[in-house]
Amino acid sequence: MPKLLRSLFVAAAALLCLAAAAQAAAPKAKTQAPGYYRVQLGQIEVTALFDGVIDLDTKLLKNTTPEELDRLLARLFVGNPNMSTAVNAYLVNTGKKLVLIDTGVGAYRGPALGHVMENLRAAGVTPAQVDIVVLTHMHGDHVGGLTDASGKARFPKALVMVAQEEADYWLSQETAGGGPKPPQLFAKFARDMAAPYIASGRWQTFAKGSVIVPGVTAVPAFGHTPGHTAYAIESEGQKLLICGDLVHAHAVQFVRPGVAIMFDADQAQAIATRRAIFKDVAAGGYLLGDMHLPFPGIGHVRADGEDAYGWVPVEFAPLKAPAK
Amino acid sequence: MPKLLRSLFVAAAALLCLAAAAQAAAPKAKTQAPGYYRVQLGQIEVTALFDGVIDLDTKLLKNTTPEELDRLLARLFVGNPNMSTAVNAYLVNTGKKLVLIDTGVGAYRGPALGHVMENLRAAGVTPAQVDIVVLTHMHGDHVGGLTDASGKARFPKALVMVAQEEADYWLSQETAGGGPKPPQLFAKFARDMAAPYIASGRWQTFAKGSVIVPGVTAVPAFGHTPGHTAYAIESEGQKLLICGDLVHAHAVQFVRPGVAIMFDADQAQAIATRRAIFKDVAAGGYLLGDMHLPFPGIGHVRADGEDAYGWVPVEFAPLKAPAK
Repeated sequence: MPKLLRSLFVAAAALLCLAAAAQAAAPKAKTQAPGYYRVQLGQIEVTALFDGVIDLDTKLLKNTTPEELDRLLARLFVGNPNMSTAVNAYLVNTGKKLVLIDTGVGAYRGPALGHVMENLRAAGVTPAQVDIVVLTHMHGDHVGGLTDASGKARFPKALVMVAQEEADYWLSQETAGGGPKPPQLFAKFARDMAAPYIASGRWQTFAKGSVIVPGVTAVPAFGHTPGHTAYAIESEGQKLLICGDLVHAHAVQFVRPGVAIMFDADQAQAIATRRAIFKDVAAGGYLLGDMHLPFPGIGHVRADGEDAYGWVPVEFAPLKAPAK
Repeated sequence: MPKLLRSLFVAAAALLCLAAAAQAAAPKAKTQAPGYYRVQLGQIEVTALFDGVIDLDTKLLKNTTPEELDRLLARLFVGNPNMSTAVNAYLVNTGKKLVLIDTGVGAYRGPALGHVMENLRAAGVTPAQVDIVVLTHMHGDHVGGLTDASGKARFPKALVMVAQEEADYWLSQETAGGGPKPPQLFAKFARDMAAPYIASGRWQTFAKGSVIVPGVTAVPAFGHTPGHTAYAIESEGQKLLICGDLVHAHAVQFVRPGVAIMFDADQAQAIATRRAIFKDVAAGGYLLGDMHLPFPGIGHVRADGEDAYGWVPVEFAPLKAPAK
């Protein structure tokens, strides 16, 4: 371009710049993108749903040292002592049934949490379309979304399913009895969430290893709670194991599977379960999902030597069409 | 719950199950969530925009061995030899100006790419609202979105800005001359994309280190192309450096910054630039963004010893409100 012509262009552009400066800028959005993310497994579509984030105190982590925690958390730029931790749920569309795994915190913990319902809608699904809600366990951040703030069932047609051992524990008079200690408070909340489904005959327990619907199988993963259950989603040789609360601190517990969290009802059993599942996922090369891994909480597990693993989240990608 | 009552409930639930089986399941969505993601930096809002994915042949990577590539790619579950690679762009809202950094592939590479425009709209912004498009460089997957399939400018009001060295190279008669070798073909495409903006006086070059708008500064990052430029986004002590094509293979080039890619015009200079930027980002603890890191392509860089780094993507999180 001749120099004179370029100078003219630059002058014209500068004028345009001044003109633009007089305009109002586009307003800031001030909101995040919708919190859902899909993966295709053969003929099954799985949608991760973001409920929000909760700050956990890193002192809740056991069988470690402050020095080890400082090092492992800093390595992955995770807050310490306030560890920002995701809460996820997962929707499974088998083509015949719509199964929601866990429901988030619901209306009970303030605006940073309780977004499963809006993200379900953003993903194009109404609560009335959900056929089955299965629970990994009955802690508040998994059952809280079963009801609205008035205690009414949020899923008007869904059957709620939970492992026999889990229901037996939380709904028993023994757990409910006594003073205001955490188990009793948790049990009261769990019973309140279950109540409208029990009252309307839409509450069902199942035995270990049950097939929830074809393609979704319950896998016992006891320890975090007495009936804590993972769900294997399988289609055409592809597999995703949704593990509930197998991991609370990705920066720590993959590298050191022996680190437990105070919320584990039976820490030794929870650790043994985590080790067994990590080993199988890494050896099988299939996907793992977890309610407290950074959203969407789906990825691969890499064996990094004796009792040490690496977490590799899936990369954001368009949805692959299933094979015909 | 008494056993008889429970049995009745189970029977009722089974009946409901049968009833539900007669219903049609919710249809599968078959589409991914919208490809945008926001981060707040002080008073500035940055939105990552997903253009799509392109398969790159891992043989394009230089200064490495097949064994090292196999090991590093497998470690992060990246495809080999077809390495699925994201193409990103970034929208910066300073509150006064809306600046788009790069434009993706546009209408020229098929359905797996060219989604910046739809994700811009999904993020709530129209092309007419964009005040400035700045380019990291003039390769096709950065300038392709400047025009539509008919060659018309897609951003009707935006000024397009690019480093003087970059425009000089791609728009020169010297680069354009000769046969159909890649540089000439790339140059023709770059000229075609720039043409409607040059014709309407909305094309402007700038000198190294220029302030594009307050909060957005051009940082020379030459090597990948002669005028390849990063952009520093800064507000209230927070910083994100959008680095263009500093990295094409996250699984390889953080661990081995000395690995180059065939597309680098000057591989030695590109490597020196990558090392210098990694070192500064890691030491400064600020965020890095890159057009070919897994979407949203924003995260921290950790120094892992002599000439080795780790990539830690941001965790999905709600948008934090800026301090008042």
